[in-house]
Amino acid sequence: MTTRTDYIRPLDFKQGRVDMNHGAGGRASLQLIEELFARAFDNPALREGNDGAVLDVPPGHRLVMATDGHVISPLFFPGGDIGCLSVHGTVNDVAMMGATPTALSASFILEEGFPLADLKRIVESMAAAAREAGVPIVTGDTKVVEQGHGDGVFISTTGLGLLPAGRNIGGANARPGDVVLVSGTLGDHGVAVLSQRESLAFDSEVVSDTAALHTLVAALLAAVPEGAVRTLRDPTRGGLATTLNEIARQSGVGMMLDEALLPIQPQVDAACELLGLDVLYLANEGKLIAIVAPEVADTALATLRAHPLGAKAARIGTVQEDPHHFVQMRTRFGGQRVVDWLSGEPLPRIC
Amino acid sequence: MTTRTDYIRPLDFKQGRVDMNHGAGGRASLQLIEELFARAFDNPALREGNDGAVLDVPPGHRLVMATDGHVISPLFFPGGDIGCLSVHGTVNDVAMMGATPTALSASFILEEGFPLADLKRIVESMAAAAREAGVPIVTGDTKVVEQGHGDGVFISTTGLGLLPAGRNIGGANARPGDVVLVSGTLGDHGVAVLSQRESLAFDSEVVSDTAALHTLVAALLAAVPEGAVRTLRDPTRGGLATTLNEIARQSGVGMMLDEALLPIQPQVDAACELLGLDVLYLANEGKLIAIVAPEVADTALATLRAHPLGAKAARIGTVQEDPHHFVQMRTRFGGQRVVDWLSGEPLPRIC
Repeated sequence: MTTRTDYIRPLDFKQGRVDMNHGAGGRASLQLIEELFARAFDNPALREGNDGAVLDVPPGHRLVMATDGHVISPLFFPGGDIGCLSVHGTVNDVAMMGATPTALSASFILEEGFPLADLKRIVESMAAAAREAGVPIVTGDTKVVEQGHGDGVFISTTGLGLLPAGRNIGGANARPGDVVLVSGTLGDHGVAVLSQRESLAFDSEVVSDTAALHTLVAALLAAVPEGAVRTLRDPTRGGLATTLNEIARQSGVGMMLDEALLPIQPQVDAACELLGLDVLYLANEGKLIAIVAPEVADTALATLRAHPLGAKAARIGTVQEDPHHFVQMRTRFGGQRVVDWLSGEPLPRIC
Repeated sequence: MTTRTDYIRPLDFKQGRVDMNHGAGGRASLQLIEELFARAFDNPALREGNDGAVLDVPPGHRLVMATDGHVISPLFFPGGDIGCLSVHGTVNDVAMMGATPTALSASFILEEGFPLADLKRIVESMAAAAREAGVPIVTGDTKVVEQGHGDGVFISTTGLGLLPAGRNIGGANARPGDVVLVSGTLGDHGVAVLSQRESLAFDSEVVSDTAALHTLVAALLAAVPEGAVRTLRDPTRGGLATTLNEIARQSGVGMMLDEALLPIQPQVDAACELLGLDVLYLANEGKLIAIVAPEVADTALATLRAHPLGAKAARIGTVQEDPHHFVQMRTRFGGQRVVDWLSGEPLPRIC
């Protein structure tokens, strides 16, 4: 795209607001793209200015495609915002398939009247997250809806990744005897967002764990033989409990967790107590569950712990035969209970 | 995904409504996926039930990735709805790069309280459009926002396509002397949506032209030598005028159109008169602009006309040198005027 300098004036990123013209596809849309998105996301594919981006695929790879809509409220929360979250969430979905994320697309749905200053902050956070992850945002789209018909900013991101031929990591691969690992403390994102929403202040502020996990996945996969990592999944909406139930169901197995082994920050524990929440159902945005063959469990755990994003990794349970596909947990008090799917009262708009 | 039959009751697609639980990532989300999305979109990748889809890339191809958010209002309009539109729009963006569309992802943002019956109708329309186009929806995501924070349904789709090595079609390739073709009548989609919104009834109802154009593109590309089609673009938001200005700018050229050659349905002309609209700025959702080398213009036009989606194709102008990159038009009355970008009064939420 060549630069055009004939706008009457540059966008006002201090006092300006999104208006319907920014979504109409004409000159105002172009200005928003040029003065905000193209500058922040700058990369060769985007610079072409076409309706789509052209990407190379090295031989010997398959592709992974994943998509996620982001409607988190509030847009800014301790430890992050909808911008970086929308990059991390989709990078992680691609990485959980064992693929190396290579490109993202972004679709923005903006509400008329939204401050351009906030939009800029979000877009720059997104750009920084994409740069840090090494995954460019190669194509995008922006729409605007009338005030009262949206909620500030919604962002849908789609990610592409390269999957080496022969790699097969998925929810259906867990087998009895496998070991369940989690890469760190549970519930941080959920508590950070919910406490901000409830305007609660804790002695020690809990921040979201939002992070791109693809380098952690790469380290893990490099450390153990192909096939030994059965399943990777990030326990976002619905939390650890729901994610493990999904896997149990897909693989046709049961699981037994050990409550005493779950890594939980004390201030998250305290917040859950205060807010009446169960940490097992709280969203995480920078954690993964790895289900691995028993013979590599020690190596896998040590590898996770050696990575900055996995320092608090823990072995939390095992996969077992179970015709009912129940996820169960040995409690701290020596009892045993079924850990069901999330149901009932939802925790809305957590991602 | 195995089938689970332990929901208390199936979703009520007659009286039921979207609730916050459908977006919470737990059992209700799973039920919506299984009883609606997975059934309608059914394909092997989706059936895996993972966070992403795995796709093959045949050797000798590059990839095209394109994304589009859809916020059209009303959701149902003469000739289509947001569901089929969201498939057609993204299939077309991929096709305009000269690629063969192979997969779509879909991100739904639903408003609490939206009737499940309408959602089903939309999803089934989407599924039918994807089936008809031969482009499966391989992965997706659903979020729910509170009543009053969305507007029924927003859908962001991302498309992938395979681009043969050596093909280069894009907005920067138009050269002086090239011929500008359009594949059919202008403004049908815009008039269909705006007249529905204004509750206008015409003698002969105008219906949206929403359609997937990839087979039309394939026919065109097969009929002429590689490189002779310089640019393909679908004149959606902003209409013909804005799209040609974009291309003129990217290519560093001017264009001269001939008003008398523009294909316009009489009832669209009449509606524009009535509504005070300029057809050059109205959105099209089933038309393409092809800029082609002069020596293939006749063949290209004949090829477009031989296809059901190009029966009314026309040669409407030529590319010319112009340091100002103006798009100009010889009017019916023998004058000449600049056809500027869309600016001023927007036509909101047309796609």
